[in-house]
Amino acid sequence: MGSLDTNPAAYAAFAADVEAFQPLNADDVRSYLHKAVDFVYDYYKSVESLPVLPGVEPGYLLRLLQSAPPSSSAPFDIAMKELREAVVPGMTHWASPNFFAFFPATNSAAAIAGELIASAMNTVGFTWQAAPAATELEVLALDWLAQLLRLPASFMNRTAGGRGTGGGVILGTTSEAMLVTLVSARDAALRRSGSNGVAGLTRLAVYAADQTRSTFFKACRLAGFDPANIRSIPTGAETDYALDPAKLLEVMQADADAGLVPTYVCATVGTTSSNAVDPVGAVADVAARFNAWVHVDAAYAGSACICPEFRHHLDGVEREHIRSDVAMAKTFEDLVRGDDRFEVVVPRNFALVCFRVRPRKPDTAGEAEAEKASRELMERLNKTGRAYLAHTVIGGRFVLRFAVGSSLQEERHVRSAWELIKKTTTEIVAGAEEDKTRKKV
Amino acid sequence: MGSLDTNPAAYAAFAADVEAFQPLNADDVRSYLHKAVDFVYDYYKSVESLPVLPGVEPGYLLRLLQSAPPSSSAPFDIAMKELREAVVPGMTHWASPNFFAFFPATNSAAAIAGELIASAMNTVGFTWQAAPAATELEVLALDWLAQLLRLPASFMNRTAGGRGTGGGVILGTTSEAMLVTLVSARDAALRRSGSNGVAGLTRLAVYAADQTRSTFFKACRLAGFDPANIRSIPTGAETDYALDPAKLLEVMQADADAGLVPTYVCATVGTTSSNAVDPVGAVADVAARFNAWVHVDAAYAGSACICPEFRHHLDGVEREHIRSDVAMAKTFEDLVRGDDRFEVVVPRNFALVCFRVRPRKPDTAGEAEAEKASRELMERLNKTGRAYLAHTVIGGRFVLRFAVGSSLQEERHVRSAWELIKKTTTEIVAGAEEDKTRKKV
Repeated sequence: MGSLDTNPAAYAAFAADVEAFQPLNADDVRSYLHKAVDFVYDYYKSVESLPVLPGVEPGYLLRLLQSAPPSSSAPFDIAMKELREAVVPGMTHWASPNFFAFFPATNSAAAIAGELIASAMNTVGFTWQAAPAATELEVLALDWLAQLLRLPASFMNRTAGGRGTGGGVILGTTSEAMLVTLVSARDAALRRSGSNGVAGLTRLAVYAADQTRSTFFKACRLAGFDPANIRSIPTGAETDYALDPAKLLEVMQADADAGLVPTYVCATVGTTSSNAVDPVGAVADVAARFNAWVHVDAAYAGSACICPEFRHHLDGVEREHIRSDVAMAKTFEDLVRGDDRFEVVVPRNFALVCFRVRPRKPDTAGEAEAEKASRELMERLNKTGRAYLAHTVIGGRFVLRFAVGSSLQEERHVRSAWELIKKTTTEIVAGAEEDKTRKKV
Repeated sequence: MGSLDTNPAAYAAFAADVEAFQPLNADDVRSYLHKAVDFVYDYYKSVESLPVLPGVEPGYLLRLLQSAPPSSSAPFDIAMKELREAVVPGMTHWASPNFFAFFPATNSAAAIAGELIASAMNTVGFTWQAAPAATELEVLALDWLAQLLRLPASFMNRTAGGRGTGGGVILGTTSEAMLVTLVSARDAALRRSGSNGVAGLTRLAVYAADQTRSTFFKACRLAGFDPANIRSIPTGAETDYALDPAKLLEVMQADADAGLVPTYVCATVGTTSSNAVDPVGAVADVAARFNAWVHVDAAYAGSACICPEFRHHLDGVEREHIRSDVAMAKTFEDLVRGDDRFEVVVPRNFALVCFRVRPRKPDTAGEAEAEKASRELMERLNKTGRAYLAHTVIGGRFVLRFAVGSSLQEERHVRSAWELIKKTTTEIVAGAEEDKTRKKV
């Protein structure tokens, strides 16, 4: 990096090595990695005590590092020093057990070690020959997943009878998966509707609930769908913010009647906003009437679906992890429900609790006051560095999201966050009362 | 994994731990990582002696591992044993100094250590707040890169005068970069041509030389361009297989005359096939006549462009690495040119040499014989496990690609691959003579 430190002795020793430049010398690899492992160990040991959200201002790093590119490489120890002194103090610690924002960042010792080895082998598996083991492991792992999710044998690459009709690929993100399936559905719909090239694209329509993650609407634009034909179907409290198949049918039928080609429906199992679960079966039935494809986005809650049906198979530990997350979220939900200053806004499905400060009166002023208090609660909590949670908007209301499940999280972290929430709310209410009194005086 | 081993004692000890499931326990992280580091060290120490291409048949791994998903996690030592016994023997070793296929897989001790740390911190930098240090490092690194490439100040996020007008993002692959720029150019062209929604998409046209990597033509399809308007401009020996601006102008003008909207030209600095260099400046001049955007794909050769202009700035080691690659490729090219059984097919630009067995007669039969011999040479070489190189087709001819530059490569590897090539060619020629003699008899 930049750099912070210009210890001349370290640079001199390093410069002597430059002539025999060996970027991948095995002894250096081992020595650097041992230092990195020490860092990682210290990091996990201390992450709980670090502020979850760092107290830095935008531009802090630009002030620490030089704006011109370094004119020579720095010794590895200097990079590690800069990591500790410049980077760590400016990181949001997703691995912290006090992180309740977005979705939990899960990780494991085995996963980190596996990534290290993959990074060192550094292969590109674009054909079987380019990395046979990588290709075959992917095929095998996806067949395992199909079995864990009890998908029909038609989803398998290999079945007991030999070569199957299915298979799949592992993609980097759920956004990539959406783009890939949208493009496939788009081209299938163009062929089916007898389009000359992409001339028929303006007639294709796609559908999703308004709670669907924004990446869906972005992926539609990437794939070239007409903005006028990207339907965001409104949801409400009556379906717990899940997609209503009757409404979907109505919108799709109207499009078909108007000469459009219903092409693709995105159903979500566990929406980002509130973990709503779209009724996949009923949605698929509606889509089938129009030969539209259905994409199931289960990026968050998918792994939980392994549990119920596989009680007898999965006696291992992974199941336990998911259950423990859900149990912790249930504990938090009970705590929130037990304090009448708060309300749980939508029923909890998995390990996410959506709550807010309860309005004191069910009118516009009451709503505004509740939003102000909820927002202030979030900001004050996050500023402490002792917890980090994010918000969403459901049915026009500002709602706090308490997401449980990061790998280091235990019940005590959930309980201590709750204590902080209660205490902070008391302070906010007291402050508001003082304000009122002052105004009256 | 599957697994190969079911040591009951190891499983029993592990099962006892299951109740207190701590996937990210710091002591486990350290212990697993130390084992992974030992593996990586041994791997780099031995990779030169491993067959570059493994001698496995498709399906080998499916026969080693069970087809049903594992019913419980395995201890880490068993995963490491499976890695050594099932995965390594089925890997193509991109890190091997005897790997001359595709493009060199470069890596460094510092890069591997950095990836380890990033993987352990496991953050998602989708907003500044979600990872301030990650966001700011990206901004800074790209400004450094802009300076190294001597781009105009308008490309910078921050300039001496404060906030600049430029900036960029780091993408995972060159394919992603193509898609992102294609979509942006597409939407700009739609706006500029007064399209109602995407109705004007059928009129947009895109351009690239026929040597452009196939990912470009795929990205065009992803972005919804009409297959009929994706122009692959023929190249030939007269421009060393680079894009000819005069031909480009002709094709773009014809499209414009026909009412199409020239939208995007992809120029490549160092094509995958033969490292041809499209004349970026002249291409940009042609594109500008039609307000079309120009994308420069310098995924392979881009970093080499840092060198010449920055001789006085870059006294560091990276420059040295690039130069040493090019010098080794030059050595190989000289060896090929010195043996009249071979010919260098296109002039070498960077660290890739494209050669083939020279036809004995400049007729169809001679060409066919040369292709047969070149193909057999590649297959026999790759089968030895002592070298791995790939091929391409240039101007209808089957050509061997010898790509230099992977991090562990030294001149002795290049020379020893050349000895192998000579010896194998002698055997092939002797075999062919014997065949002829036998036929005559």
